[in-house]
Amino acid sequence: MAKLRVGVNGYGTIGKRVADAVANQSDMTLIGVSKRTPDYEAQSAALKGLEIYTPGEDAASRFKTAGFSVAGTVSEMISRCDVVVDCTPEGVGAENKRLYAEKGVRAVFQGGEPPGVADASFVAEVNYDEAFGKRYVRVVSCNTTGLSRTLGALNRVSPLKKVKATIVRRAADPAETKKGPLNALIPNPAKFPSHHGPDVSTVIHGVPIVTAAIVAPTTLMHVHVIYATLSTTVTRESVLEELEKSMRIRVVEAARGLDSTAALMEFARDLGRGRGDMPEVVVWRESLSVDRDEVYYIQAVHQESIVVPENVDAIRASAARCSKEESVRLTNASLGLSR
Amino acid sequence: MAKLRVGVNGYGTIGKRVADAVANQSDMTLIGVSKRTPDYEAQSAALKGLEIYTPGEDAASRFKTAGFSVAGTVSEMISRCDVVVDCTPEGVGAENKRLYAEKGVRAVFQGGEPPGVADASFVAEVNYDEAFGKRYVRVVSCNTTGLSRTLGALNRVSPLKKVKATIVRRAADPAETKKGPLNALIPNPAKFPSHHGPDVSTVIHGVPIVTAAIVAPTTLMHVHVIYATLSTTVTRESVLEELEKSMRIRVVEAARGLDSTAALMEFARDLGRGRGDMPEVVVWRESLSVDRDEVYYIQAVHQESIVVPENVDAIRASAARCSKEESVRLTNASLGLSR
Repeated sequence: MAKLRVGVNGYGTIGKRVADAVANQSDMTLIGVSKRTPDYEAQSAALKGLEIYTPGEDAASRFKTAGFSVAGTVSEMISRCDVVVDCTPEGVGAENKRLYAEKGVRAVFQGGEPPGVADASFVAEVNYDEAFGKRYVRVVSCNTTGLSRTLGALNRVSPLKKVKATIVRRAADPAETKKGPLNALIPNPAKFPSHHGPDVSTVIHGVPIVTAAIVAPTTLMHVHVIYATLSTTVTRESVLEELEKSMRIRVVEAARGLDSTAALMEFARDLGRGRGDMPEVVVWRESLSVDRDEVYYIQAVHQESIVVPENVDAIRASAARCSKEESVRLTNASLGLSR
Repeated sequence: MAKLRVGVNGYGTIGKRVADAVANQSDMTLIGVSKRTPDYEAQSAALKGLEIYTPGEDAASRFKTAGFSVAGTVSEMISRCDVVVDCTPEGVGAENKRLYAEKGVRAVFQGGEPPGVADASFVAEVNYDEAFGKRYVRVVSCNTTGLSRTLGALNRVSPLKKVKATIVRRAADPAETKKGPLNALIPNPAKFPSHHGPDVSTVIHGVPIVTAAIVAPTTLMHVHVIYATLSTTVTRESVLEELEKSMRIRVVEAARGLDSTAALMEFARDLGRGRGDMPEVVVWRESLSVDRDEVYYIQAVHQESIVVPENVDAIRASAARCSKEESVRLTNASLGLSR
């Protein structure tokens, strides 16, 4: 079977990680990445030997002036691909859809785009099959991915009846020095629900989930506090067992010193992860509580990397390349997601 | 009726505010405050003309060397009081109980002490009558006070059936420069429940309330996301009306720019509040959501000042001085808690 030709449109926080992951798949070829500005991220792409495509002549000449080679236009990159992963800023992806349609390529969008941009919203272990063969697939946002992974596991133990979840959001990514707040908590928004609840429903269908989000002055990870009601009484052991089956859910113990998002990030660096990433959603073992049909737990989401495995799987799902089990296995192995 | 003679044992974040509030009550005389260290807080007490008592001769001579007058020992202060408000650090209050018992004075403890230290735990609008005439009364912690005030209001609309609440905690008070975290979220603790749920149950009895707390790097206020289930279907109007009846619950609109804890603190300063305090629990109007028997809302708690009105009322409740309505009215008027 020929390798899938994949391009990454937009080389920012998510795009650069997806590009690395794609380059690392034995069944994919990374055609290249698109970049608008010849900045330090472009420099790291060039140093890795990636082909850099630019939006047009103006951008191309800026890159050439800055000493970069340019492989062609974004339009040319798209033409050379089977699947494009769109990692452009929120809202731009939907505008780009026209380009993908014109060229007849498949596209994977990010969670910043509205669900309607795609034929299916996607979290690999939850609804891979729903996205199978679909031309346009949308990987949901970091928080929605984190919620969907663990709620999906609960749903396999006993169907979810309803969910309440509070999201304590990191305010910005580590390098985003222009964003605040420095010293405040911000309801985001100050009403129910935040977009995450409805967004989870695009992946786990028909479960009433109410979410609220509070922005906090930190850059490392989001933290979720989740209260789920299941259809039946369950045991803590059965829930823990299901969570631990997934290599994309890491159950950790605060008692071992993993008692904050900072410690989790330090652990990821100690594990030798690329960029110090933690693509697993992390559940604190001590927090997992079961009271008959109610399950409570606290989890952490590394906003920069959690969607990377889903993007890789979404490429295979869209291209109808292989089964969920096969794709998840390949992706996990390539990213070092194992025990 | 003779004025109540009140002493404040411990002149820190809470003690200095309680002292100011007591000095401002027409039915109370502030005998003095106790202080261990001749620091800037002692200096501000001296500048206000408060009588400063010290734990013993060593402390007294440190104060005298630093140029302070000393009114006597803490033991002497206690002897001169009808009621002592114990605002010493967590755990010390329980040790001090012996002193109050020896002198036969009434005492008001803070929420850092275990419930068993007192004959009743206390939130004025919820259970003033339970503390009426009790020798030892415990004002619950800032978060528990904030939860109890609004849950008490809900409970008056329709009896609470169960509650889930997530507390995003400020990491330290503004002047506590030695505490962290600088950039992390910390489940505190990483298991259910945090102490707040059981603590609310010492004031609102018999309601199952599960809480979790996440520490965030901010100093201004705590934020709570609350999911309550009532015994009956209710309307949003009836809940809002009950919340707005209380001068200790301030309903604000994010749409007016009060969209963060920082904006709330700026508002308190604009209102001319002493120390820029906000003793009301603040509920975001937009967040108040009612779905049949379920009520969700987001609120903010100013950890430094929310318990100040409760301490003043606890003094009157313990001394059996007047009714709840009368005490709350006097306290609110003295602190400017009005519309």
